[in-house]
Amino acid sequence: MKVKKEIEISELINHIGERVTVHGSIYKIRKMKGFYFCRLRTARDVIQCVCDRQELMERLKEEACVRVTAEVVKEERAKTGVELHILSAVILSRPLENMPVVINQKEMNTSLENKLNFRPLTLRNEKERAIFRIQEGILRGFRRFFEEEHFVEIHTPKIVYAGAEGGANIFRLDYFGREAYLAQSPQFYKQMMVGVFERVYEVGPVFRAEKHDTARHLNEYTGVDFEMGYIESFREIMETEVKMLCHGLDMLSREYTRELELLEVRLPELPEGFDTNAPSAVGTIPVLKFAEAKELLAQELGLGAAEREHSLACHDFEPEEEKLLSEIIRRRTGSEFLFVTHYPAAKRPFYVMEDPENPEETLSFDLIFRGLEITTGGQRIHDYEMQVEKMRRRGMNMESFESYLMMHKHGMPPHGGLGLGLERFTARLLNFDNVRQAALFPRDIHRLTP
Amino acid sequence: MKVKKEIEISELINHIGERVTVHGSIYKIRKMKGFYFCRLRTARDVIQCVCDRQELMERLKEEACVRVTAEVVKEERAKTGVELHILSAVILSRPLENMPVVINQKEMNTSLENKLNFRPLTLRNEKERAIFRIQEGILRGFRRFFEEEHFVEIHTPKIVYAGAEGGANIFRLDYFGREAYLAQSPQFYKQMMVGVFERVYEVGPVFRAEKHDTARHLNEYTGVDFEMGYIESFREIMETEVKMLCHGLDMLSREYTRELELLEVRLPELPEGFDTNAPSAVGTIPVLKFAEAKELLAQELGLGAAEREHSLACHDFEPEEEKLLSEIIRRRTGSEFLFVTHYPAAKRPFYVMEDPENPEETLSFDLIFRGLEITTGGQRIHDYEMQVEKMRRRGMNMESFESYLMMHKHGMPPHGGLGLGLERFTARLLNFDNVRQAALFPRDIHRLTP
Repeated sequence: MKVKKEIEISELINHIGERVTVHGSIYKIRKMKGFYFCRLRTARDVIQCVCDRQELMERLKEEACVRVTAEVVKEERAKTGVELHILSAVILSRPLENMPVVINQKEMNTSLENKLNFRPLTLRNEKERAIFRIQEGILRGFRRFFEEEHFVEIHTPKIVYAGAEGGANIFRLDYFGREAYLAQSPQFYKQMMVGVFERVYEVGPVFRAEKHDTARHLNEYTGVDFEMGYIESFREIMETEVKMLCHGLDMLSREYTRELELLEVRLPELPEGFDTNAPSAVGTIPVLKFAEAKELLAQELGLGAAEREHSLACHDFEPEEEKLLSEIIRRRTGSEFLFVTHYPAAKRPFYVMEDPENPEETLSFDLIFRGLEITTGGQRIHDYEMQVEKMRRRGMNMESFESYLMMHKHGMPPHGGLGLGLERFTARLLNFDNVRQAALFPRDIHRLTP
Repeated sequence: MKVKKEIEISELINHIGERVTVHGSIYKIRKMKGFYFCRLRTARDVIQCVCDRQELMERLKEEACVRVTAEVVKEERAKTGVELHILSAVILSRPLENMPVVINQKEMNTSLENKLNFRPLTLRNEKERAIFRIQEGILRGFRRFFEEEHFVEIHTPKIVYAGAEGGANIFRLDYFGREAYLAQSPQFYKQMMVGVFERVYEVGPVFRAEKHDTARHLNEYTGVDFEMGYIESFREIMETEVKMLCHGLDMLSREYTRELELLEVRLPELPEGFDTNAPSAVGTIPVLKFAEAKELLAQELGLGAAEREHSLACHDFEPEEEKLLSEIIRRRTGSEFLFVTHYPAAKRPFYVMEDPENPEETLSFDLIFRGLEITTGGQRIHDYEMQVEKMRRRGMNMESFESYLMMHKHGMPPHGGLGLGLERFTARLLNFDNVRQAALFPRDIHRLTP
């Protein structure tokens, strides 16, 4: 009787001399004198194999899918400490043509454009696919955190009747003769669900019809959103984010060391505990008010009074300012993260809570990581009259928001939350210049395929 | 010094006589002689409270959000074995108006239409919200399964260049001057990712522009999709689904007893082990071929020869047939699940593998649960020439599928997978007639709000 037992690749070292069956794709073949080197790509690893059966190896092509029977042999130069001596192979499928791009070198020596054009193939490269294992790991860590903290996972509609962020950056579609939109965020729905479950989270697609063609923008990305009720201060949201990030990074450092090594990733340090009494930090992440951050930039750049005023008046940071700010903070404190709070009300959406001490500022924040904004969050208005008054001031059409305002009218706790861009976080974690490198099948103003 | 300690509602029984602080919404108030009954809705429970402070209670309205300080008192008639005697309360927010629908009765005595119109409010009903806790639980169980079985979670684009299912049931949108579509399923992308990770899964929105206005259709729903490589038979996909379902149900029976009791749900029985050698069952789920199922229906209904032929020729089941079939199988075998396999090739999409023994049938299946199809799955074509030949026969435009066919051209393992409709599964599990009852904010041909 044959007994099948599944063993992890990393455990092969304990099976020296035994016969195993492994399936995977032929990643690379190299003909030597009297034998062949072969690398077999399995679900998570690339295994070093040798074979001296010429008639067999000549039938195998790179990217053929095979099931091989092999002997486990000790080989100290291999990463796993073993190599497989192939005895026989069943060919499950054969490629029709040679690859249009070389994918089996350690580094993919091709343009990003080419990588993306041939995505179904280039993702087979061991480093390329490792990016998305890491992305999976981040999310597994986040999800573990959400479960521990009693956040309920929700799935809210992506075809919507009104945009949360407003403006022109919204995709329109025909919905059985009516105009509908693609959700710019689950904002309205996650707020409504705070009235139901107190704490909710959602991971899903977010659509932005932005015409920017930059290294930071995607027109569809994966939003990690949470929203929590009964907060006493908007700092609680920042504290919650820090814990969430810690869980993500912790998951990577425990279960994704293979991929971290392969991509030579250095994880940022994050605090275990949180000193919420520190006046200008959440945990060990420095916190600056928007105006303070602008002042810091002005000092660094040696701006004159007129330039300072102009910079403050734009109510946001230029990408270059974010980078510089991040660099200054890293230099001074060692932190690669930075919270900027109290953004001007003028540039934040209508649902954002204003600071009672200064209504021109909001109880909102961005998290900047390695020079790039990866999160926007803050406290929301929960009082009906305050919300309606603000909408009136902005000249908004109240009727479109009837079902949104329903929750305010019938009692909502103080609440807030945030949205994190999964591709942006992944990209900065891996020190990629372009967010597209961390998007499985990116959508931008020019790209709709694959 | 004050010490804050979080305790679970179910643990209150161990804190009799102690003083606690709890936040939540006033769910219901009833004035008695000399005191008030009050039910407090917290994140997951509704807690029985009493209060004899008239001036306090008269300031409280139903749906006000409060933070109460109370003493834990033993009360055997209460579900939790305790009630809270409210000593003081901080009012965090007040409702502006009375509720337009009554939500604080055990049963919501209103139409489905009304329930959906006032969704942000009606979801606050304890039974309504329990539905979506259960939905969360199903998915947590599924996810646990996917992690154990090494499926990698992916996020694929929802704005796409071509539809996987074809036909007219697709939403169109303008994508910077080009025509684009909303994904009818992650089919193409999950297949591509089998070439990368071997096993993948995705939970995300699926868009179908179907004009059906029935109790079974949603125009946007939550798809649970998986795809796996190196299968030896399409039965492996069915076996995998059974294990996934077991994990979902197991999670519910362990961590969601409160909600199951509240909704009086009877979970279906599912096998622990799988006897894959049984000729006509996967685990204890009966399996019928499509033609056999049609024959069974014909016998049950006493159809004549012409009627049988007509029924077979439509290549699918009518909703009434699915119900009847399910009923026959339950009566005969006790199973509330039924796999139907070998659907006619004529009605299945172009990527479905035909049965080599009979090309008019496909290696595909549906899972029918309590009278409703909740899953479609099967083996896919992995060979390039076979795929292209089939597309030619169907007169398809090959150019639109260039990036899809890229994977076939360059080596794919035998693979298959399935898609499960989360709302449909939830609805049947809870014995709802209408799938909308299990959709948080349903989208149908008439409904775009809330």
